[in-house]
Amino acid sequence: MFLTRSEYDRGVNTFSPEGRLFQVEYAIEAIKLGSTAIGIQTTEGVVLAVEKRITSPLLVPTSIEKIVEVDRHIGCAMSGLTADARTMIDFGRLEAQNHWFTYNESIKVESVTQALCDLALRFGEDQDDDDESTMSRPFGVALLIAGVDENGPQLFHTDPSGTFTQFDAKAIGSGSEGAQTALQDAYHATLSLREAAILALSTLKQVMEEKLTATNVELACVTAERGYHVYNKAQLEELIAAL
Amino acid sequence: MFLTRSEYDRGVNTFSPEGRLFQVEYAIEAIKLGSTAIGIQTTEGVVLAVEKRITSPLLVPTSIEKIVEVDRHIGCAMSGLTADARTMIDFGRLEAQNHWFTYNESIKVESVTQALCDLALRFGEDQDDDDESTMSRPFGVALLIAGVDENGPQLFHTDPSGTFTQFDAKAIGSGSEGAQTALQDAYHATLSLREAAILALSTLKQVMEEKLTATNVELACVTAERGYHVYNKAQLEELIAAL
Amino acid sequence: MFLTRSEYDRGVNTFSPEGRLFQVEYAIEAIKLGSTAIGIQTTEGVVLAVEKRITSPLLVPTSIEKIVEVDRHIGCAMSGLTADARTMIDFGRLEAQNHWFTYNESIKVESVTQALCDLALRFGEDQDDDDESTMSRPFGVALLIAGVDENGPQLFHTDPSGTFTQFDAKAIGSGSEGAQTALQDAYHATLSLREAAILALSTLKQVMEEKLTATNVELACVTAERGYHVYNKAQLEELIAAL
Amino acid sequence: MFLTRSEYDRGVNTFSPEGRLFQVEYAIEAIKLGSTAIGIQTTEGVVLAVEKRITSPLLVPTSIEKIVEVDRHIGCAMSGLTADARTMIDFGRLEAQNHWFTYNESIKVESVTQALCDLALRFGEDQDDDDESTMSRPFGVALLIAGVDENGPQLFHTDPSGTFTQFDAKAIGSGSEGAQTALQDAYHATLSLREAAILALSTLKQVMEEKLTATNVELACVTAERGYHVYNKAQLEELIAAL
Amino acid sequence: MFLTRSEYDRGVNTFSPEGRLFQVEYAIEAIKLGSTAIGIQTTEGVVLAVEKRITSPLLVPTSIEKIVEVDRHIGCAMSGLTADARTMIDFGRLEAQNHWFTYNESIKVESVTQALCDLALRFGEDQDDDDESTMSRPFGVALLIAGVDENGPQLFHTDPSGTFTQFDAKAIGSGSEGAQTALQDAYHATLSLREAAILALSTLKQVMEEKLTATNVELACVTAERGYHVYNKAQLEELIAAL
Amino acid sequence: MFLTRSEYDRGVNTFSPEGRLFQVEYAIEAIKLGSTAIGIQTTEGVVLAVEKRITSPLLVPTSIEKIVEVDRHIGCAMSGLTADARTMIDFGRLEAQNHWFTYNESIKVESVTQALCDLALRFGEDQDDDDESTMSRPFGVALLIAGVDENGPQLFHTDPSGTFTQFDAKAIGSGSEGAQTALQDAYHATLSLREAAILALSTLKQVMEEKLTATNVELACVTAERGYHVYNKAQLEELIAAL
Amino acid sequence: MFLTRSEYDRGVNTFSPEGRLFQVEYAIEAIKLGSTAIGIQTTEGVVLAVEKRITSPLLVPTSIEKIVEVDRHIGCAMSGLTADARTMIDFGRLEAQNHWFTYNESIKVESVTQALCDLALRFGEDQDDDDESTMSRPFGVALLIAGVDENGPQLFHTDPSGTFTQFDAKAIGSGSEGAQTALQDAYHATLSLREAAILALSTLKQVMEEKLTATNVELACVTAERGYHVYNKAQLEELIAAL
Repeated sequence: MFLTRSEYDRGVNTFSPEGRLFQVEYAIEAIKLGSTAIGIQTTEGVVLAVEKRITSPLLVPTSIEKIVEVDRHIGCAMSGLTADARTMIDFGRLEAQNHWFTYNESIKVESVTQALCDLALRFGEDQDDDDESTMSRPFGVALLIAGVDENGPQLFHTDPSGTFTQFDAKAIGSGSEGAQTALQDAYHATLSLREAAILALSTLKQVMEEKLTATNVELACVTAERGYHVYNKAQLEELIAAL
Repeated sequence: MFLTRSEYDRGVNTFSPEGRLFQVEYAIEAIKLGSTAIGIQTTEGVVLAVEKRITSPLLVPTSIEKIVEVDRHIGCAMSGLTADARTMIDFGRLEAQNHWFTYNESIKVESVTQALCDLALRFGEDQDDDDESTMSRPFGVALLIAGVDENGPQLFHTDPSGTFTQFDAKAIGSGSEGAQTALQDAYHATLSLREAAILALSTLKQVMEEKLTATNVELACVTAERGYHVYNKAQLEELIAAL
Repeated sequence: MFLTRSEYDRGVNTFSPEGRLFQVEYAIEAIKLGSTAIGIQTTEGVVLAVEKRITSPLLVPTSIEKIVEVDRHIGCAMSGLTADARTMIDFGRLEAQNHWFTYNESIKVESVTQALCDLALRFGEDQDDDDESTMSRPFGVALLIAGVDENGPQLFHTDPSGTFTQFDAKAIGSGSEGAQTALQDAYHATLSLREAAILALSTLKQVMEEKLTATNVELACVTAERGYHVYNKAQLEELIAAL
Repeated sequence: MFLTRSEYDRGVNTFSPEGRLFQVEYAIEAIKLGSTAIGIQTTEGVVLAVEKRITSPLLVPTSIEKIVEVDRHIGCAMSGLTADARTMIDFGRLEAQNHWFTYNESIKVESVTQALCDLALRFGEDQDDDDESTMSRPFGVALLIAGVDENGPQLFHTDPSGTFTQFDAKAIGSGSEGAQTALQDAYHATLSLREAAILALSTLKQVMEEKLTATNVELACVTAERGYHVYNKAQLEELIAAL
Repeated sequence: MFLTRSEYDRGVNTFSPEGRLFQVEYAIEAIKLGSTAIGIQTTEGVVLAVEKRITSPLLVPTSIEKIVEVDRHIGCAMSGLTADARTMIDFGRLEAQNHWFTYNESIKVESVTQALCDLALRFGEDQDDDDESTMSRPFGVALLIAGVDENGPQLFHTDPSGTFTQFDAKAIGSGSEGAQTALQDAYHATLSLREAAILALSTLKQVMEEKLTATNVELACVTAERGYHVYNKAQLEELIAAL
Repeated sequence: MFLTRSEYDRGVNTFSPEGRLFQVEYAIEAIKLGSTAIGIQTTEGVVLAVEKRITSPLLVPTSIEKIVEVDRHIGCAMSGLTADARTMIDFGRLEAQNHWFTYNESIKVESVTQALCDLALRFGEDQDDDDESTMSRPFGVALLIAGVDENGPQLFHTDPSGTFTQFDAKAIGSGSEGAQTALQDAYHATLSLREAAILALSTLKQVMEEKLTATNVELACVTAERGYHVYNKAQLEELIAAL
Repeated sequence: MFLTRSEYDRGVNTFSPEGRLFQVEYAIEAIKLGSTAIGIQTTEGVVLAVEKRITSPLLVPTSIEKIVEVDRHIGCAMSGLTADARTMIDFGRLEAQNHWFTYNESIKVESVTQALCDLALRFGEDQDDDDESTMSRPFGVALLIAGVDENGPQLFHTDPSGTFTQFDAKAIGSGSEGAQTALQDAYHATLSLREAAILALSTLKQVMEEKLTATNVELACVTAERGYHVYNKAQLEELIAAL
């Protein structure tokens, strides 16, 4: 069975007899090797939390950045190949800026998500054109895109196939399976932003191999009032103490 | 037998000794994995209905959009790879807009269908040219294109081979076989739009694994008076109750 | 024997040790899977008849169009991959229009046939150039091109190798073998146009699996007086009754 | 032995360990499948004769054209893939016209032959450039080029390797072996044009499977006085009667 | 197990079923064959030390240059393929100069690191564009980038996957495993620059096969006051004596 | 042994583990299939002699041209693929003419030789550029380039690897081994041009399968006084009689 | 073991699982088949000596040129594929001339060496750009570059990987192993230029299969006073007598 499969899975963009695209499925596997990331949407705003893998005591933890700002009102958590994610984020930031310059208004959260998925779908295309962001293979990265716009707080999930879906709460990465179950049990529509932050941290705590500390997690939120905001060490420690 | 076939089916655009194009046939398989979609044409207008797969209770159902507007008078239901469909729909919308700007009249339903099929046929072509919509493999998506023009209400079906055909009623996706039989039994030329909507929902109900609710189906219609129109939750619940 | 052949037949445009081009031969196989089409030339004009495969009772028969107009004085019946044929026909129409604009006279039937064969031969060429009609594989379609010009009524046959030949009467598609024998027995140079139409229908009747009706065949003729003309339902039924 | 060969013969333009180019040799095989053509040079002019394969009684024999005019003073008989030959002939005609426009004199027979061989050698080259005549494989066609210029009547033979040689009399195609032997026995330098025409026909008669008639052969000559000239049916029948 | 792996590891930029990119992993292996390099960050500045492999007594040791200046305030130690490193360093120097010319200020250490990683990620891309630095395979080189800017002294590590991380102390190359352990035991945040230099040399001493001398190591530091500075032979010998 | 070799010899321009380029070696084999050619340098000038293979009594011997003029003072004998040689010779003639136009002096014999070898080395390069002479495989031809310039009479030999060497006397082609031995025995520095011509013919005579006549050899010389000069039939017969 | 290797060594520029680039290693093998070359640096200047392989008594020895001038103050000895070396040398000469025209000063020996190594590294790159010197495979040649500039006499060695190193004395080619050992034993920093020339010749003598004569070796030196200088026959014979 694996033998016949092997005939199709090396073609970057070829259908197998069952109508599957193996390279995209394998890229999704790459994400299962990544660190866990969690996003939770509340009526007050969206919370993003990520595990940091500190592989060496001499590594500077702040140099691992798994949650980044896309625009003033949009943040993004990633899992998978870091370098791939950097390319996607840069593309998303550019889209957001272009929207500002062209229409003099903030880009919608869904629009930036769709732009990133269109980019993800274009792998394998000829790279002669101006757009330097296309790749010869699928992007090995999943994103949780959190933002607030005229439709209120929203959380989107993208995967290497170029598909995106909106979630109330979503976990990606190596611990995503356990985390997602925990989120389903605990999530309710009336969570406050602080409760969501604590839920995200407690869920991460369950799936992380190492003990959760203010050093090996990253926490950020996007709210209508303050836009994208990263929790500092003191805020993180206060929340961890509250678990 | 499968061994000799394997010699030909990896070539994206190569004939097998029997004159078959395997990559196109495999792309058609991809559609059999997709969610079921149904279209029914009546003298009053055309109805489109699609199953939504809510894979997680935390997923926001409204973010799954399987029926979309192409132009004021044309709607489209899809089954297969969502990201591929997005590319095709965007191309179709552009064609429709271009027609407006060039001829100052609405594009015909058949014209937009033919434009989408021409695009589907062009896979494997060099992607240097301006048109960004060509792909290195067949599109893994089938469309039901519903519209009303000077020829009255019409329903077209397209598949990955770039072939299109007009139908009175047509089902695509994983449940298409059972659904099509049901449609053949129930369809008659004098169906009212409301009867067609109820027939579409009852047919979906038969082939869906989950219980049909106002959340996990989408229903739209195209009529001469109102153009493309999506049924809201209340309208859907009223129709489901009428089943 | 089949094993050694397999070494050559995947190359789109490569000779086998016996000097054969397998991809072209396989494309010819694709035509043997197509619906049967028949053309008959008389001194009054040329008749084209095609079988329509109505695969579903809900399919709208008039949306299957297997005989099309190329220019006012030229018609074309096709068998094989419908989407490929559409590309060829569009190319032929353009050639015909260009001839009008450049020389202010109708294109000759043989000229448009040669232009289509030149296109068929160009598969596998680089697709960078302006001409969008070239393909990465042979066209999987055979055409019967019927027309009337200063040389009188003529019927040409083209195949995927880019070869064309003139015939008095010719059948293509899945039933072509039996149909061609029937035509050879019945054809004589003094057939009237009406007799040729009846001969075409009776020949189709012999090779079609389903019962021949006014719905599942298409009939057209090209005459010096009226140019390209499609028989309507009443005319068809009258002829079928005359069988 | 055949196994080791297979390692090299798929490369379009690659040497085998013995220094052979298999694709060119296989293209030469394609010619052995073609209909027989014969050329004979006399002091009065050059004669070309070709067998026509009438595969169906309904086929119009005059639509098979295996001897064509290249310029007023140059004719050409072909054997092999007809569609390939058409590309070469068109190229040769263009060369001849260009020569007229540039130098205001007829092109030499050897010059047009060399231009065709240069084209034959260029297969496998990049096809981006202006010249549309290059192919991705060798041309599967052999030509007999007959002409009269300041050097008198001449007969050239070209093959897919891009080599050309001058002959007093030469046969190509499926019956070439037997025909060439017959020509060697019968040819002498003092043949009149009429004797050469009869020799060509009688040689064809020996190698053709079907009975030679005025319908299934084509005969042409090139003389200083009249240039390229095709024998009409009456002339052919008179010669056949004289056999 | 190795057999199934081999299906994927030749594709320069293809995912394996487990979601791995083998060519990148193999490039990382190339670094394990390289000479050991060590970087240590202190509050006073950053120290870089590299082993030189003097493979022949006739080789001129000063011609082996494994630590180079990128900008006045940034230095770089390398391990792996020397020629690849040269390409990357040249690219980094250009980026640094461009920053000067465009913004009239020194480039940040992290910015130059990110630029080098973006370059590393672009392997396999089309090389038509102006930027001559892209490669058809991953760069087989790891870099330790040391610099001082407004954020103080910093040490970054890059690998062939285009990932970079900040470290307090980091070893790369064939002896990196043992060296990294030694660094973890000995490093503390209050090291003076001189203590860091001695720690770097004593760590190199442990992992080098040959006896450490002033000839077969290279030592450099970057400080706020003096920028990039290479230790001369006398300074090296003094430090070696102090071990 | 042959099996492991086969892994490398299909790559047009790839090294084998022993550092060999098989396609170039195979091209050299192609020359061993060619007709024998001989060049002899004397103080009076250089002699070139070539065997002509008259494969058919109807072939016109003068149409086989294996010795050609490159410039007024340079001639060239060839062995191997005739069509490849034609491309090289045309390139050499152009180089010679360009030299005339640019510097108003004759090109040196070594310069034209080097230009031809640079061309030979460029196979496998992209063919987009203006220079149409590059090939996708090595040229399957060896040349003997004879000329007289300010350095006196010179004879150069080129092979498919792009290497050239000067010789006093050199044989190439199928009979080269025996001929070269014969030349080594008979050559001395004080040969007159006539003696060299007779030596060339007698050496050819030894290695040719057919009887040497004035029809099946070609003889030319390059001298300071007369430049390139071809021996006519009478001169040839006189020399053959003198053997 | 050899089997698994074979999976990687055909890719021109692909890493093996151990992080090796086989095509580069195989190109280095090509050099081991080349003739031996030796370079020795003294305080007075640098000496280069090369073995000439006179494969035929009729070959003109002076036409084999293995030591060439790059600039007035830089010479170069080569081993490996002669035609590849010619391309590199031409590139180096151009770089040297460009330096003169741009900066009005001689290029440094290290600069020209680095330019040649950058060229060597670029193999496999797209060849569309202006620079005609890039290759589709590694250069199969090693160079000894000798020169004198403001840093005094210097000797550099380059190999196909694009790496260069400075040596006091270095041997390359088929006899390099024995020669290098001999050089290590005999070299000392106070050698005079004449002593170095004699050492080079005596070392060559040890590793050459044929008897060393003034005909089958080439000797050159680069000094501050006279620049690049080739020893004439008399000088060579005097030195050989002094062995």
